[in-house]
Amino acid sequence: MKEISGGITAPAGVSACGIHCGIKRRGKDLALIYSEGETLASAVFTTNKIQSASVKLSREHLQDAKARAIIVNSGNANACTGARGYKDAKLITALVARELGVSKEDILIASTGIIGQFLPVAKIRSRIRYLVKSLNCKGNTSAAQAIMTTDTFHKEAAVSFEVSGKSVSIGAMGKGAGMICPSMATMLCFITTDASISKSALEKAFRDSVDKSFHRITVDGDRSTNDSVFILANGIAGNRKIHSGSESFNEFQKALNYVTHKMAKMIVKDGEGAKKFIEIKVAGAQSQEDAKKIGFNIANSSLVKIALGGENPNWGRIASAAGSAGVNVMERKLSIFMGDVRVMKNGCATDYDERKVKEVLADGEIKVSIYLNLGKKDYTVWTSDLTEEYVRTNT
Amino acid sequence: MKEISGGITAPAGVSACGIHCGIKRRGKDLALIYSEGETLASAVFTTNKIQSASVKLSREHLQDAKARAIIVNSGNANACTGARGYKDAKLITALVARELGVSKEDILIASTGIIGQFLPVAKIRSRIRYLVKSLNCKGNTSAAQAIMTTDTFHKEAAVSFEVSGKSVSIGAMGKGAGMICPSMATMLCFITTDASISKSALEKAFRDSVDKSFHRITVDGDRSTNDSVFILANGIAGNRKIHSGSESFNEFQKALNYVTHKMAKMIVKDGEGAKKFIEIKVAGAQSQEDAKKIGFNIANSSLVKIALGGENPNWGRIASAAGSAGVNVMERKLSIFMGDVRVMKNGCATDYDERKVKEVLADGEIKVSIYLNLGKKDYTVWTSDLTEEYVRTNT
Repeated sequence: MKEISGGITAPAGVSACGIHCGIKRRGKDLALIYSEGETLASAVFTTNKIQSASVKLSREHLQDAKARAIIVNSGNANACTGARGYKDAKLITALVARELGVSKEDILIASTGIIGQFLPVAKIRSRIRYLVKSLNCKGNTSAAQAIMTTDTFHKEAAVSFEVSGKSVSIGAMGKGAGMICPSMATMLCFITTDASISKSALEKAFRDSVDKSFHRITVDGDRSTNDSVFILANGIAGNRKIHSGSESFNEFQKALNYVTHKMAKMIVKDGEGAKKFIEIKVAGAQSQEDAKKIGFNIANSSLVKIALGGENPNWGRIASAAGSAGVNVMERKLSIFMGDVRVMKNGCATDYDERKVKEVLADGEIKVSIYLNLGKKDYTVWTSDLTEEYVRTNT
Repeated sequence: MKEISGGITAPAGVSACGIHCGIKRRGKDLALIYSEGETLASAVFTTNKIQSASVKLSREHLQDAKARAIIVNSGNANACTGARGYKDAKLITALVARELGVSKEDILIASTGIIGQFLPVAKIRSRIRYLVKSLNCKGNTSAAQAIMTTDTFHKEAAVSFEVSGKSVSIGAMGKGAGMICPSMATMLCFITTDASISKSALEKAFRDSVDKSFHRITVDGDRSTNDSVFILANGIAGNRKIHSGSESFNEFQKALNYVTHKMAKMIVKDGEGAKKFIEIKVAGAQSQEDAKKIGFNIANSSLVKIALGGENPNWGRIASAAGSAGVNVMERKLSIFMGDVRVMKNGCATDYDERKVKEVLADGEIKVSIYLNLGKKDYTVWTSDLTEEYVRTNT
């Protein structure tokens, strides 16, 4: 497996583009991803009870597990827009379908931006012909730029690897989320592949990969109205079809995980105002669920994020957040490491070298490890620091 | 019932004081509250699995539901200090007991400040005689000042009311918590009364009052290592003893609720960097538990708090936080008010008057109401806004 350029259009048969249509005052705000031939499709959507019309419609259009294109707009979430928002999404996908000459159920839609405003449908409608005409196999970057909101850089990744002597590619683009409170900011990711893979194998690899990447940065059941991760697989690589449990499946899973991990990390690193990437590993838990709850309780603690952002070795805040996750923690068994420096052992401060901890915290990537010493399960969560700039951005 | 001055020493037989002993570099850092005669005592402690040695020892000393004094230090939490921290707390309470001439089990202790450092026991020890000598029936304000950490003002309240022809008083002092994330900052409150009340009536009134005040600003099961609310009742007012279910019990409950509400509101208003007091009322829920989960999910959303702090009518963030609380919410039944302006109806934006919403948000107290229209239960949560200053304070 090797990293390649080309992002979302790296796989054969995939084209994309991004244009300005006027949803935002300035900059690109409309993207299209198109896949040639019969294409398997799947998605993982937000578990928020309030969902964007785009999420609702895409879920319906995915019932046959097939799709040909995804239209994505930034600047407007099309959420809390009721029946009209749904009708708008339906009209837009129908227009794209007509222009592409495919079935309207084969068009998916995703949105990100402000909640509670209707989409400027006339503006979008007037640009759909141009959007479709702009599709090209090198349109990955313009598409990735068109889905940005408060992101400071566009996010894409791609890898290639061999399956039965054929070169197979996976590409992706995504946009980020404010990292204080993943529940509120929208995370979108789009993945394409030219692998030939069975529907069930694709589904399995995709769900597993999302669980090990995007779900580590955004709590299940605690997400925005629009969060979505899509995958399209068109089989154009011509490899022997990948089935679950095979060696080629493992290769595919590995490559997919590489791409989703890279995208998830980029999203965290671009957290609004973020200066540091923080990995929180909780080990020695009685269950993975316990480890996850503790990990997210620490990662969502603003005081922990502020302390780490300020390079302040305040491990007491980490211990307190571990203790308040609502799961079993035994103070006298708890140890905490910052980098490889043990700052807490058996529930008490160690006589650690402050200079060494300062060095760990000065780095752009900080690893915090919490050992519960109660069992054998672990879980890792990724987050960013919290800065004054974040508050400014969101005021 | 009327408000009176005197804070924690308003009730007869209660004296207090606050002094500097050197735990902090500057300012008072040690307080003592003393009650004459046989005194009923109770407390509600943090549910954090990591608990201060002070919490552990006070819980033990409360097993007989009696106490005579509470020593409180600021500047050091005596948390994550293991066996030594516990021994330190035990020594300090024993020294106070000896100086006061009471049983050592009758001394309670509370701490607030940095986690993971040992108490400077020698410094405290050398000042205990002076501390006890400083007790006086007008020491309420110096005591309230000595328990402050990042608080910008000291917090006290007191009321008096009549029971069976006798004047009864309730007094209180407290210290605040950073309000982004109540899980991490310590909230302490001390309540005294000269009411004659049965042990079970006191317990009932106290628990109920804490549930309706401090628990509305700090999530159960999600608290700091040191959070504690104490009550002392010495019976010196000489009223006919209050028993549960009586009219005088209702009077007592009302007065106690008045004091705890006032203290809780003061703590919220003094949230670090806070400029606004925000009341979030969730109504029409299927259960109070649902309403509470939604209320806290909104109150803990940094993006909501930042938006309201910036007087930005971004109700979409509120809707999204309501939808991600993990409980039943139906988008098409959801309405949201800011002040008395309905900004969302049946899941969609209303055509509200932006000028009116601006007026609501410009006020120092903002009320947000969420109507789920699914049932009859409601819950109200209090929080503050989130400002750049908060981040600065905590870095």
